[in-house]
Amino acid sequence: MNTPSFEDIKKAAATIAPYAHKTPVLSSSILNQHFGCELFFKCENFQKVGAFKFRGGCNAVFNLAESELSKGVATHSSGNHAQAVALAAKMRGIQATIVMPENAPTVKVAAVRDYGAKIEFCAPTIQAREDGLKAVQARTGATEIHPYDNFYVIAGQGTAALELHEQVQGLDYLLAPVGGGGLLSGSALSSKAIAPSRQVIGCEPANADDAFRSFKRGERITDVVPNTIADGLRTTVGQLTFPIIQQYVDDICTVSEEAIVEAMRLIWSRMKIIIEPSCAVPLAALLEKKISNTLHKRIGIILTGGNVDLDKLPWMS
Amino acid sequence: MNTPSFEDIKKAAATIAPYAHKTPVLSSSILNQHFGCELFFKCENFQKVGAFKFRGGCNAVFNLAESELSKGVATHSSGNHAQAVALAAKMRGIQATIVMPENAPTVKVAAVRDYGAKIEFCAPTIQAREDGLKAVQARTGATEIHPYDNFYVIAGQGTAALELHEQVQGLDYLLAPVGGGGLLSGSALSSKAIAPSRQVIGCEPANADDAFRSFKRGERITDVVPNTIADGLRTTVGQLTFPIIQQYVDDICTVSEEAIVEAMRLIWSRMKIIIEPSCAVPLAALLEKKISNTLHKRIGIILTGGNVDLDKLPWMS
Repeated sequence: MNTPSFEDIKKAAATIAPYAHKTPVLSSSILNQHFGCELFFKCENFQKVGAFKFRGGCNAVFNLAESELSKGVATHSSGNHAQAVALAAKMRGIQATIVMPENAPTVKVAAVRDYGAKIEFCAPTIQAREDGLKAVQARTGATEIHPYDNFYVIAGQGTAALELHEQVQGLDYLLAPVGGGGLLSGSALSSKAIAPSRQVIGCEPANADDAFRSFKRGERITDVVPNTIADGLRTTVGQLTFPIIQQYVDDICTVSEEAIVEAMRLIWSRMKIIIEPSCAVPLAALLEKKISNTLHKRIGIILTGGNVDLDKLPWMS
Repeated sequence: MNTPSFEDIKKAAATIAPYAHKTPVLSSSILNQHFGCELFFKCENFQKVGAFKFRGGCNAVFNLAESELSKGVATHSSGNHAQAVALAAKMRGIQATIVMPENAPTVKVAAVRDYGAKIEFCAPTIQAREDGLKAVQARTGATEIHPYDNFYVIAGQGTAALELHEQVQGLDYLLAPVGGGGLLSGSALSSKAIAPSRQVIGCEPANADDAFRSFKRGERITDVVPNTIADGLRTTVGQLTFPIIQQYVDDICTVSEEAIVEAMRLIWSRMKIIIEPSCAVPLAALLEKKISNTLHKRIGIILTGGNVDLDKLPWMS
């Protein structure tokens, strides 16, 4: 069984409860007025490590078998998943090794190191990252924690939508960005178990539209070369996540780069919170009217993370 | 009686309750670790108009006598108080006229106009602003809402500390920035009524240290020329607010411009929330160890506002 059940998601919520934040839901009367609907933002930018990724990484690390603990965990990532696995491993008292591309931002490398993980640098290609990870595993016997094609990671990501449901009743829509599909598949599993009529919509940059095209064609397309400011969404939809998305997600829409930047700035300036570009993609979909029949509806949006380089904001030249 | 009683502050809380947000209190385990104490941030950056100023403006507008309503209200301000008065007047259905310097940021002018206020531009000097206000009052009979030297404004600002007390028990310290002194005096009145042993400390830029110098000398000094990035604190401590500060505030400390920027960036990057420079001054005081005996203590900080020009951040050259 590769698809977590709703029970698995509830178990994940209990597993991560001592370690993860129950993040707040914020709303903005100005944005509600602007969009003509009621928006409820689930603030995973306030989550540990600044992103929802901690939910999945934490659930995976705390579901390791006793026999796996001494060999530690490993993954390759230049982003939020690296920090998530590093912190979860630290909390469980085991070793994490993260394979990072040598051009990873200094601040992200430092954060992973601060959590006590070992870092192995590699060339900045997918092949080099995968080879690096295999080498680490061969040497240490570490368990791989894949950023999205992992049962426990998907179940962990599903806890954000579960929590949102406990915090806000009667949502008509749930919007989430889609990159590898861990968050979207987990969110859809939660939502359809809780409220089958709730529309679950994936939102993706048009410049990285592999999930959109895969969804429309009915088979996984993996040869899209992403070129988007939404750095968290440059991944390809997964082998485990895609079938879940096919079965449980109502639709996927795409948005322009301009709308992503505009939506990001709207949230910064109106809500006074910091979100990363990937995080702005669902609001960008509303800006570009890519989702029909939203007038006066109650719409949940998962704000995925707030890790952004404050020295390089997308609206600065 | 120019000093609001605790009863007046509780009345203010009831008056503004239908209009103002009950803002959340956030904390950050990373910042707690960093500073060696427990920090509780009262997020007035999430308040209506993006700043605590709405509390005072709203309380003043909703305490107007029936006979004053038809003539409206007026003030001079280039900042958050202008928006506060404009929005409160809109909510009460009366006219507001705001005298603004002709070099006020376009975005702030637009915000005031969006709230339906009339704007009168003047030369960017205190004299021109005061003359402009007098002219408006002579012509319209409007009631002036002073940004801090106003009984109802002080009582309104005191509601933030009251709310914080209901949200977090057992605070040892309450820190607030001081500009005109409305927030600090209101906070001190609340705190000393609720918990007399709680230390109330005002925090001020060293480059705008009129309140600090007034407090130390025991008389109001008004000839300091402010030169600080904390634009909300460039005002002079007030005639009404200073005696309250003398009586109820335990100490005032000053901080460097560098510490203000560092504290601002720490809050942005670690807490993922947007605050303006004025708002970072209390954390800057902790950074520079200007407050003694804080180890393991519970410290409340009022984050005053989040209205910042996203195109001109202080760490960008």
